[in-house]
Amino acid sequence: MGNKEQSMSIVLENVIVSDANSAKKVNLRIENGLISALDENPLPISPGDTVVAGEGKLALPGFVNAHTHLPMSLFRGLADDIPLDTWLREHIWPAEKRLTAADVYWGSLLSLAEMIKSGTTQVADMYFHTDSVARAVSEAHMRATISYGIVANKLDKHGKDELAMARETIERWHGAANGRIRAALSPHAIYTCGRDVWAAAIDLAHEKNVPLHTHLCETRDEVAWSLTNLGQTPVLALDEIGAFSIPTIAAHCVHVSEEEMAILAQRSVTAVHCPKSNAKLGNGHAPVVSLLRAGVNVALGTDGAASNNGQDMIEEMRMASLLSKGALEDPTALPAREVAMMATHNGAEALGAGARRISTGEDADIVLVDLSGVDTVPAYEPFSTLVYAAHGCDVTDVIVAGEFLLRDRKLFTIDEEQVKYEVNRRFGKAFAN
Amino acid sequence: MGNKEQSMSIVLENVIVSDANSAKKVNLRIENGLISALDENPLPISPGDTVVAGEGKLALPGFVNAHTHLPMSLFRGLADDIPLDTWLREHIWPAEKRLTAADVYWGSLLSLAEMIKSGTTQVADMYFHTDSVARAVSEAHMRATISYGIVANKLDKHGKDELAMARETIERWHGAANGRIRAALSPHAIYTCGRDVWAAAIDLAHEKNVPLHTHLCETRDEVAWSLTNLGQTPVLALDEIGAFSIPTIAAHCVHVSEEEMAILAQRSVTAVHCPKSNAKLGNGHAPVVSLLRAGVNVALGTDGAASNNGQDMIEEMRMASLLSKGALEDPTALPAREVAMMATHNGAEALGAGARRISTGEDADIVLVDLSGVDTVPAYEPFSTLVYAAHGCDVTDVIVAGEFLLRDRKLFTIDEEQVKYEVNRRFGKAFAN
Repeated sequence: MGNKEQSMSIVLENVIVSDANSAKKVNLRIENGLISALDENPLPISPGDTVVAGEGKLALPGFVNAHTHLPMSLFRGLADDIPLDTWLREHIWPAEKRLTAADVYWGSLLSLAEMIKSGTTQVADMYFHTDSVARAVSEAHMRATISYGIVANKLDKHGKDELAMARETIERWHGAANGRIRAALSPHAIYTCGRDVWAAAIDLAHEKNVPLHTHLCETRDEVAWSLTNLGQTPVLALDEIGAFSIPTIAAHCVHVSEEEMAILAQRSVTAVHCPKSNAKLGNGHAPVVSLLRAGVNVALGTDGAASNNGQDMIEEMRMASLLSKGALEDPTALPAREVAMMATHNGAEALGAGARRISTGEDADIVLVDLSGVDTVPAYEPFSTLVYAAHGCDVTDVIVAGEFLLRDRKLFTIDEEQVKYEVNRRFGKAFAN
Repeated sequence: MGNKEQSMSIVLENVIVSDANSAKKVNLRIENGLISALDENPLPISPGDTVVAGEGKLALPGFVNAHTHLPMSLFRGLADDIPLDTWLREHIWPAEKRLTAADVYWGSLLSLAEMIKSGTTQVADMYFHTDSVARAVSEAHMRATISYGIVANKLDKHGKDELAMARETIERWHGAANGRIRAALSPHAIYTCGRDVWAAAIDLAHEKNVPLHTHLCETRDEVAWSLTNLGQTPVLALDEIGAFSIPTIAAHCVHVSEEEMAILAQRSVTAVHCPKSNAKLGNGHAPVVSLLRAGVNVALGTDGAASNNGQDMIEEMRMASLLSKGALEDPTALPAREVAMMATHNGAEALGAGARRISTGEDADIVLVDLSGVDTVPAYEPFSTLVYAAHGCDVTDVIVAGEFLLRDRKLFTIDEEQVKYEVNRRFGKAFAN
């Protein structure tokens, strides 16, 4: 699709920018993928500049969805309200076995369309058919860390094939799309990869200088399995193997002790909180407030759309805060600004890419959220309005690396109707005939 | 605003309607405020009929928000993330003292605009300046049960004044607006109204043949207060006074024992589950699954927008289901269809008005939800898509008593820009200057 104006510079006028102490109305200039100017006074406009009227809109660094499986939007609603084991064994795994590369491509685009429309600019993905995932990310002009999810008990023929796929994903895609795509190494979990597989994966991550992205302490069963089979908890087992010598993105961290939190904090591990998925699958609620207090970098993720069933980071922030307040019976738990930091800054830190804040020199990954609707007025505190009242559909504009992906709620890089057509003819069934 | 076509009949073509066993595509005719025909075959169209193309849209009985305080949208975001006692004493109560009748009118319209846009057709409200609330409801063409919230320790001068206000609200508004407005009697709670006040309120409810609407077992402090001061729990105390001899709408029911659930089930008490408000204020999570199992009619409510901070029933359904699944660590808890019944049928049953289901002869309170967006496809099971994936902004059309309140996402009875203007000039502060 035509993106001629993308090389020109963009000026966002009169947007609201908020830091820990105050909110102010500013003007931003975006050039060469970066924020080049931020000023409370009007900026000079040159011919060819794209000027956006930002009155009433909050400008944020784009949301970072730090744990997802993009193609799983194909299974959104396939099998809800059933036990976890049945869900996996009888529905999700058989459906995944049948997926083609083309399916994965269209499913990834569907998720990316949903994400961009609700303000996400960067994701950490783990799946297979990674060429299809990467191609979708590249075409959508999104920022992503992609990885091939390794599942192998031993370093036998199958295990070696899995590692080869992971290596190929890194070699083919790390640094692609003008650096917007990066790669990670993903042993799926402690219970789905044997010790030798983990060791080989860690070596490969060292060799390629990429982070690990794995599932950690998601279910009580996982912890019980680890204690029975390895004689220690998943965190201690992975630490002993040397996994945490590499920056690690650890999804879930629901069932972790205080001792394990201290280890996660000492090593460079980011815990990715996925509150909706954990609740919906009946896995419980992660001790987010304790993780933050222990000094762990906590980011936010939706997990795949099969277990969420959405990928809206505003709703995920709200859910994170409300679930913590409810579980701890403490209305001061996980305040708006802290959860907004998790959804933006902490995710970008974990992935080592994208905007961490709105300031000059940062990557221009910027989202505008209209806070002037009947769901959000009156105006008291912008982050409170964002986290507790706003909706994904209040996002009006999304910029990644200085390019519009969404403008006035219209997608720029994805043909939404084509994506829905391709998904609908492959998956689901008509609700009624 | 002009509603000339409202007296004509409406035909909804090819909408999806789903019951416990199946989903089908049907055509609906709406005349004289009722559903007059439902057919899988095309209905004859007469000149002057308003025809709506419903392809891809789920037709539901409108959502019933069974516990709210409409004017409190004025305080949305006023004071989040702080302890409950400070929130009430230092922020909400002082702000409420300053409210004028005009403030309450505009705040009510703001909430009604938000609610209609997200599919709500009926509310149970409790507040003061009830003339303003009722005027807003009447102008919005909404269906509502309104009540004056009585707060009085004794039946002294103040207590009698409070009861007089409650009586006046009933006499002035019960049955108004072609029966769309009904009234209830609202002693605020066990700890804010003395025994004599409760007794007088119960007498008045009997005299006027209106239901009670109160707060019940919302906080641990309320239960502790009741045990200390009355020697029994709030449910037992109210049952002894005879409150439950009248149909009662009991908001919250967070801290209730199995014994108390049995009492609520035996009497005609509806428990209104308010999951987001209970979580956000740190009051915990109501035992919804146990309440339903005990046979209690459980409806759904948002509570006021000061403690939610939204009034979107789709999000409230999702939160109800996910919070129960997470708290019980059971992915089968509160399945989609059951929570959708709570949000529609059970609320209408409790209020004795409005549509309970989509069938001929029912009130034409109908909502269309577009399930064909990038947030909702592909199609597997309509209620699963509605509860776990759809958003308030996917609601396209809202009909109450046979009249459009929303059509193609545009409000018909409320001037949204005027409401925002009036609210913004009275409340909040600009986020930034």
